[in-house]
Amino acid sequence: MEREHRIDIRVRYQETDGQGRVHHANYFTYFEMGRVEMLRAAGYDYGVLEDEGILLVVHKIECQYFLGAKYDDILTLVTKLKRITHARCEHEYEVLRGEELVAKGASTLACVDRSGQVRRMPEWMVLDD
Amino acid sequence: MEREHRIDIRVRYQETDGQGRVHHANYFTYFEMGRVEMLRAAGYDYGVLEDEGILLVVHKIECQYFLGAKYDDILTLVTKLKRITHARCEHEYEVLRGEELVAKGASTLACVDRSGQVRRMPEWMVLDD
Amino acid sequence: MEREHRIDIRVRYQETDGQGRVHHANYFTYFEMGRVEMLRAAGYDYGVLEDEGILLVVHKIECQYFLGAKYDDILTLVTKLKRITHARCEHEYEVLRGEELVAKGASTLACVDRSGQVRRMPEWMVLDD
Amino acid sequence: MEREHRIDIRVRYQETDGQGRVHHANYFTYFEMGRVEMLRAAGYDYGVLEDEGILLVVHKIECQYFLGAKYDDILTLVTKLKRITHARCEHEYEVLRGEELVAKGASTLACVDRSGQVRRMPEWMVLDD
Repeated sequence: MEREHRIDIRVRYQETDGQGRVHHANYFTYFEMGRVEMLRAAGYDYGVLEDEGILLVVHKIECQYFLGAKYDDILTLVTKLKRITHARCEHEYEVLRGEELVAKGASTLACVDRSGQVRRMPEWMVLDD
Repeated sequence: MEREHRIDIRVRYQETDGQGRVHHANYFTYFEMGRVEMLRAAGYDYGVLEDEGILLVVHKIECQYFLGAKYDDILTLVTKLKRITHARCEHEYEVLRGEELVAKGASTLACVDRSGQVRRMPEWMVLDD
Repeated sequence: MEREHRIDIRVRYQETDGQGRVHHANYFTYFEMGRVEMLRAAGYDYGVLEDEGILLVVHKIECQYFLGAKYDDILTLVTKLKRITHARCEHEYEVLRGEELVAKGASTLACVDRSGQVRRMPEWMVLDD
Repeated sequence: MEREHRIDIRVRYQETDGQGRVHHANYFTYFEMGRVEMLRAAGYDYGVLEDEGILLVVHKIECQYFLGAKYDDILTLVTKLKRITHARCEHEYEVLRGEELVAKGASTLACVDRSGQVRRMPEWMVLDD
């Protein structure tokens, strides 16, 4: 799996709020898109993983904001895979508008089964730092 | 089941968009809240219905807008149950801010099972016009 | 301006709900994306229109659902411009998954200024049926 | 201003995702509701602040998740005001379902004017640790 993946995201009108900027909660949706597309680029389909009972759930997530993104901006999301242990999967994120850093974030995901019980990350996903 | 139910909804910041008004798509979320609370007032819990394999899905929905609602407005949603046949369930909605009509809508719901197959509405739900 | 425009939309995880399908309210966000991209294809930028005091607001919108779309589906949205008068702008929509019709909709937009007062649609936008 | 404020939030159907749990990004919307209601309990209206050119923007926010909340759950959000300096405003959050800890979070807000320029927090808002 590549360690870094880039996608472009065009800001939707609904993603802005009364301040005319992207509402801060929407960056977490962008991060999720980044993880999914990174997985797809590596040949995996997150929907298929779920069908196989491998549900990734967010354990911890954070974001720091530097600039306000506006409607119709094209943002570049850089998703970085830091490591995957049997227990956790760690990503970092950068949101850029051209050369400008709009936001950066980090997340830790855990693996659960359909009933919500924590399970080990599948062996093939484990990836050292 | 009563034929009309009222709830108050306070507009969340995230529900506004760059025009400083509630984004039009959010009214459909309000309508859904109205249906759920009307059901609850009649002693039914929609989550329990789903557990029993009775999934209500929107077949057709519409909304007409007269005024823009703003952040922090308290809106009154009036949900009206028009009728429930074996095939369909029809509601109408009015969104008010004090005496002013902000929006009105209508929906038709169908009943499906977990696999998405259409099924008859449960007998106890049927309600003539 | 072309009368029909197509875009592909990949369903985001957050757009699904507890039924595992795209929540019905999200189709209205898709329709908005379709209108914006149709405008862009014609050389207009909706953000610039707003900067010039031309705000398009939804007056009436509706959607009918035929199939449930799932996470990661690639949907094709066909946006059709029916006509633009001095008072109104009418669109129709079809959401397809391959050859299957998932949903169809229609909307009527009005034009307002920054203060929310209705104004005439700009002359250059008027387009007969 | 009180240092701790509680509100109850009923989970909306649209807030759940395909895993049947509240999508993690929605907790940030809950936190925002908590901040607004804490401010209101102290006699301030965030909308009025914005009208006066005092816009609070999220500089950094994080959340850690312990349990999945489901549709129709009644969650108790405890918002804690840690301190307000001339530059920053810090909150912590706990989301409970009965006695169970569902999630906890923290945020740092900054103050900007309408043009997005950072400005000092108004004197009356400053509150030591």
